Amino acid sequence: MSQVQDKAAQAYGRSFNFSAGPGVIPVPVLEQARDEMLNWQGSGMSVMEMSHRGKAFLKIAEQTEDAVRTLMGVPANYKVLFLQGGASLQFTMLAKNLLGAGQTADYVVTGAWGQKAVEAGKLEGGVNVAWDGKSGKFSETPDLAGLTYSPDPAYVHITLNETIQGVDYLADPGIGPDVVCDMSSCIASRPFDVSKYAMVYAGAQKNLGPSGVCLVLLREDLLERVPAGLPPMLDYKVQSENGWMYNTPPCWSVYVLGLVCRHWIDFGGLEAVGRMNEEKAKVVYDAIEGSGDFYKPHAAPHCRSRMNIPFTLPSDELTDAFVKAALAEGMSELKGHRSVGGCRASVYNAFPIAGCHALAEFMKAFAASNG
Amino acid sequence: MSQVQDKAAQAYGRSFNFSAGPGVIPVPVLEQARDEMLNWQGSGMSVMEMSHRGKAFLKIAEQTEDAVRTLMGVPANYKVLFLQGGASLQFTMLAKNLLGAGQTADYVVTGAWGQKAVEAGKLEGGVNVAWDGKSGKFSETPDLAGLTYSPDPAYVHITLNETIQGVDYLADPGIGPDVVCDMSSCIASRPFDVSKYAMVYAGAQKNLGPSGVCLVLLREDLLERVPAGLPPMLDYKVQSENGWMYNTPPCWSVYVLGLVCRHWIDFGGLEAVGRMNEEKAKVVYDAIEGSGDFYKPHAAPHCRSRMNIPFTLPSDELTDAFVKAALAEGMSELKGHRSVGGCRASVYNAFPIAGCHALAEFMKAFAASNG
Repeated sequence: MSQVQDKAAQAYGRSFNFSAGPGVIPVPVLEQARDEMLNWQGSGMSVMEMSHRGKAFLKIAEQTEDAVRTLMGVPANYKVLFLQGGASLQFTMLAKNLLGAGQTADYVVTGAWGQKAVEAGKLEGGVNVAWDGKSGKFSETPDLAGLTYSPDPAYVHITLNETIQGVDYLADPGIGPDVVCDMSSCIASRPFDVSKYAMVYAGAQKNLGPSGVCLVLLREDLLERVPAGLPPMLDYKVQSENGWMYNTPPCWSVYVLGLVCRHWIDFGGLEAVGRMNEEKAKVVYDAIEGSGDFYKPHAAPHCRSRMNIPFTLPSDELTDAFVKAALAEGMSELKGHRSVGGCRASVYNAFPIAGCHALAEFMKAFAASNG
Repeated sequence: MSQVQDKAAQAYGRSFNFSAGPGVIPVPVLEQARDEMLNWQGSGMSVMEMSHRGKAFLKIAEQTEDAVRTLMGVPANYKVLFLQGGASLQFTMLAKNLLGAGQTADYVVTGAWGQKAVEAGKLEGGVNVAWDGKSGKFSETPDLAGLTYSPDPAYVHITLNETIQGVDYLADPGIGPDVVCDMSSCIASRPFDVSKYAMVYAGAQKNLGPSGVCLVLLREDLLERVPAGLPPMLDYKVQSENGWMYNTPPCWSVYVLGLVCRHWIDFGGLEAVGRMNEEKAKVVYDAIEGSGDFYKPHAAPHCRSRMNIPFTLPSDELTDAFVKAALAEGMSELKGHRSVGGCRASVYNAFPIAGCHALAEFMKAFAASNG
């Protein structure tokens, strides 16, 4: 985010919002959404009021799909779908669609969301947990190439970045079987190669826009596996054949998602976004490392998320005092998830680097006063 | 809508939007959403950026549920849920949750949406079509008390107002079995008695706000019927126990839905809304009836929808000319659904009466020139 944009944010009295999701949206996107609220580009209506079969919204839909394909370099043989129900409904849908009767799917579990994917998958078919980080408190991601998988698995499911535990593979997988990937909390945070995945899905509310829409990138040949007789709303084939408009889509969320993608294209694309995020995360990790043992990172060094940075303090009392004092300084949502404890700073794409510096300064001062 | 609001709408260059859905939203709601876009009520963030577990959004959630309960007079023993996937996903969910093994559910089919409910229901269990208006081209609703139902049906499913065919029961059902009702296109358009239904559901994008959220009112004892082992996102018990936040809800759509309900409470509640809608619909039906046989209504007189008014013209050529000329006059989305043909004027709660008068004048002039 540029200095000009930082100043605009200050003018609106905006806080530094460290929410793990829904998270920050670029200020220029919010400004455009605001300015177009009563009358989208001369259409005489708000985006929220448009027939999803009408010309105006079909143009928005096309622009949004184009922006996703351009920003993420989506190959032509992948469908781009905007579905409802978030990643949690995908846990069920992907198993219903891709895990055939008698087949086994392998799941690599690196945190809370991977666990939920397993639970939902087990209701639908044969699930094998190929690796589980629970005994290590989900503080790391494994080397996928070194794991043993089922013979001919339907797919291997991974969670690229675990939002709660803040562990990330930091690279695309390079394994043989089809990889299905929950990319909710790190999608579009750095360059990635869609062709390394059979399917990518991501709830939008971290890096792509508002909640209520889930992006699905699906290699087209996977549609051949979809069994007959699925509920139509849960059927990738039905959703693909109807251009993700089997029923009324979440129009507003799709619109904002398109603006967000366009924003990062104009910013310089995912290479530029990735450099910015490395720099931002380094500011916070340096503050953790520089504190002696006052702040302790949850994730092992080789797999530290650049999006979600959980860290603990010496006691629960100090944690509470930290969160409260930070809030008074305009830094919100720093309380960690109860399963990990401590604090968590989520610094998604649209989170300004000024906020990382502000947090680092605050951490230093707080440790000095309480260490 | 008051004259002041009509003038505000004109100032924004808004068209008369006859869309069948997503449809019109009250101008003051759009203005508030616009004004709060960058910083919701001093929170330092947009509603789209808020953690759904944070104080600010929990306040919005509570206010929204309160507004729904107040506007619609929802009894205390009904859950209010805001779910994703629209009415189409409810077609599947309600059968998965409420139609037990070996049971039969009765469906009364008065149009296209009832047909879809039947198709989805059949995938889940025993479905009996108690009445089907297809042979009469879905031009009427039956007397529910006069139909023969299965012995002890799990529920009787009705579509209170069919959006495409424009037929409406215009009254709450007074029958013995539990009634499950798709109220998408007429909810909150007039007073209704929630206690006459076991469950009411409605995609928001017609009378309640933007797409992406589906309101479900569920009598609590129905939760006892929910079988074990449903996918968690499709389980009414899971959704109820988690206060419709098993995962991240569609926050923005929920927020706008709350503003819309509050708007109609301030307007005078559903009695006042009902009177307004009767008046608005009468303007259009009078124009149809007064045309000789130039315009023909689709629905039989006793069940004419006040929300969706389909009518035909003497030829397809005249229909196309009508739609095109109306658009040039700032009246959009008047083309009817292909299954009925002709035109359709959807005049939801937020559609201004000035637009009904404008349409009536236009219809008169068009018939005079082309009759």
